[in-house]
Amino acid sequence: MITQWKQTHESGITYPEGFVASGVRCGLKSEGPDLALIVCDGPASVAGVFTTNLVQAACVRYSRHVVERGAARAILCNAGNANACNGERGDRDAIAMAEIAGRELDLDPTMVLIASTGVIGHALPMDKLERGIPAAVNALDREGDTDMRVARSIMTTDLRPKMIGVRCRSDEWEGEITFGGVCKGSGMIAPNMATMLCFITTDAEVPPPLLQKALNEAVRVTFNRITVDGDTSTNDMALLLAAGSGDCRITEPGPALEDFTDALTRVCLYLAREIARDGEGATKLVEVRVTGAASEADAERVARTIAESPLVKTALFGCDPNWGRILAAAGRSGAAFDPNDASVMIGDQIVYEAGAAAPFDRDDAHDCLTEPEVSLSINLGVGSEQVSFWTCDLSYDYVKINAEYHT
Amino acid sequence: MITQWKQTHESGITYPEGFVASGVRCGLKSEGPDLALIVCDGPASVAGVFTTNLVQAACVRYSRHVVERGAARAILCNAGNANACNGERGDRDAIAMAEIAGRELDLDPTMVLIASTGVIGHALPMDKLERGIPAAVNALDREGDTDMRVARSIMTTDLRPKMIGVRCRSDEWEGEITFGGVCKGSGMIAPNMATMLCFITTDAEVPPPLLQKALNEAVRVTFNRITVDGDTSTNDMALLLAAGSGDCRITEPGPALEDFTDALTRVCLYLAREIARDGEGATKLVEVRVTGAASEADAERVARTIAESPLVKTALFGCDPNWGRILAAAGRSGAAFDPNDASVMIGDQIVYEAGAAAPFDRDDAHDCLTEPEVSLSINLGVGSEQVSFWTCDLSYDYVKINAEYHT
Repeated sequence: MITQWKQTHESGITYPEGFVASGVRCGLKSEGPDLALIVCDGPASVAGVFTTNLVQAACVRYSRHVVERGAARAILCNAGNANACNGERGDRDAIAMAEIAGRELDLDPTMVLIASTGVIGHALPMDKLERGIPAAVNALDREGDTDMRVARSIMTTDLRPKMIGVRCRSDEWEGEITFGGVCKGSGMIAPNMATMLCFITTDAEVPPPLLQKALNEAVRVTFNRITVDGDTSTNDMALLLAAGSGDCRITEPGPALEDFTDALTRVCLYLAREIARDGEGATKLVEVRVTGAASEADAERVARTIAESPLVKTALFGCDPNWGRILAAAGRSGAAFDPNDASVMIGDQIVYEAGAAAPFDRDDAHDCLTEPEVSLSINLGVGSEQVSFWTCDLSYDYVKINAEYHT
Repeated sequence: MITQWKQTHESGITYPEGFVASGVRCGLKSEGPDLALIVCDGPASVAGVFTTNLVQAACVRYSRHVVERGAARAILCNAGNANACNGERGDRDAIAMAEIAGRELDLDPTMVLIASTGVIGHALPMDKLERGIPAAVNALDREGDTDMRVARSIMTTDLRPKMIGVRCRSDEWEGEITFGGVCKGSGMIAPNMATMLCFITTDAEVPPPLLQKALNEAVRVTFNRITVDGDTSTNDMALLLAAGSGDCRITEPGPALEDFTDALTRVCLYLAREIARDGEGATKLVEVRVTGAASEADAERVARTIAESPLVKTALFGCDPNWGRILAAAGRSGAAFDPNDASVMIGDQIVYEAGAAAPFDRDDAHDCLTEPEVSLSINLGVGSEQVSFWTCDLSYDYVKINAEYHT
């Protein structure tokens, strides 16, 4: 069990010992820093989770190979150009990015992970990266606003940087473990599409297979349970580097790994919720909670269907306690339940039960939906499985952001 | 093979011999006619397809039983109140509607089909129906604007009435067959949700099992291949009445039934496309065509995912030839294909092939997307299966219609 938990949002990716980073302007976005570099003092264990989209950017294909080898020293990430759907040239450019970084850092390029986000179908301007990567290496630091610069360098249409630093303890561990995390994403964002990118560092020592197991589990219940518009990107990627620079060493499955996974899940949950909150055009963060399901898969099916329903999401934007849309979304999800045994809550008020509308205070329900964080829950009345899912509302600004951009 | 086809949009549900109808105001909507009645001179064979949503309105549960018996004389449809999620009272009210209609028409109430569309979770005002149903019976007619009044009576947020009359021939038939059709639907529409309702009449004589087979097949490739927002309603229903008042009798499976199914499919296709065209906030009708798939299921998966993607639909609203979003939606659909072998077309221009952007005329592609009917196609390059799917774009007005309504 996690016995101590301290988190900060002033620090991020270099919070654990053993990491330096930088965020510089390379000229890929129209303004602001757009190239981030994260470097570990020595070889780190690495784990990664990648988009399941069949259409995959060159960086995804490349970094997957690095992760398979289990060790890495650096993550190089550019924003403003996804380097996706660029044919063989895209693959060559991704490798060239790793080679330039390797040369400048005096590392084997196979130890450099690559991530990209931005416009697709446009070739990377390699001349800019030839100049930008050495600048990023020169700027490597752990002090001042380094972590914030990293967070800003990976943003595209995100409105807010998203980062976290954590220091935590468990009785199962020697000493404490620190985590640093940063992510970006706010929909499949302009210009062409977007991307969820998440980078996490830790000072724990965890061998790659166990690290991958922990990351898979953490992502499953966090990043895989957020949705802005249901569209997955060609570039999605979550990477975890474990430096082994701290006191805690985890060498086998068991309670210590479970608590590490638990802590990692909390880090991912914070970052995932920040992505949903910053969804394109979002005015609120919405938790969709499904309880009483026959299976976890059914609970997730219902939660995802509600969270992705344009009708539910527009009603949330309009602060309308429209339980009919919630119930109807559940009904078409494919999950097994009897509507007569189900109940729906908006905030802490029951609005539907026993097959019909419950008497509820409409003004209260409306007011509750005007808050920046709102919760919808549905009890399916079948079993005991439950999940939470996070989304945002669907506003005029979502349409604006996605319709007014011209490729 | 269908050898002759004449269609009109001046006539609709009473176009075949043997049917009368009416559309009257009963007071369930804020204005306009809101109660439609369609009556066959004698017992008609009946077939029906109903929503697959687990949450089903009382009229769906009731009419399903009528369809199972295979014969019906009338369809009574109200707009403005869905009579869904009203518990046992809802079931009693649906039965009462059939009983009042049966009494006024001097029919067994089990021969009366019931359909409802509109707000959910509010009890039907039965006093209004007690007065409205006799008025509908008194107004039964086949002349003048009867069919248009029926089409208007079943509308909720639809902007346009949708109806068709068809007279067609096949060498497999004795004489000709006439069809009349009417439908409504433009999304899961305000106030609470909406509904796709479709009623079709024909003068052919077709026994219920064959009629059901024909309707299932026609709906599968038409109404089941349109989407406005991916939300299915609690009240969706397509009903087909075959009066046997004409020359053509179909008694067994074979070429005559195949041509009947083909003709019925064309009727459904016209009506389904009209629903997509009239989608909430829609500025254009979009055909998504998938070719070169390994299976029909894969083709449908890709087509549906593209047609439901908010990113694709907002790009269409913005007239942006954003092939990246189309390809990425295909990539997450679950269908098997290699993006390097796929190609994407907007109108008749190839915009993506061989793993990268194709050189295309951006202005032409933009102009083609400003038309009222546009087509997107993707060839998966795997096999030879293909399907078409119809949808509309996602505009500010979709958000407005669905966010600004307050239950």
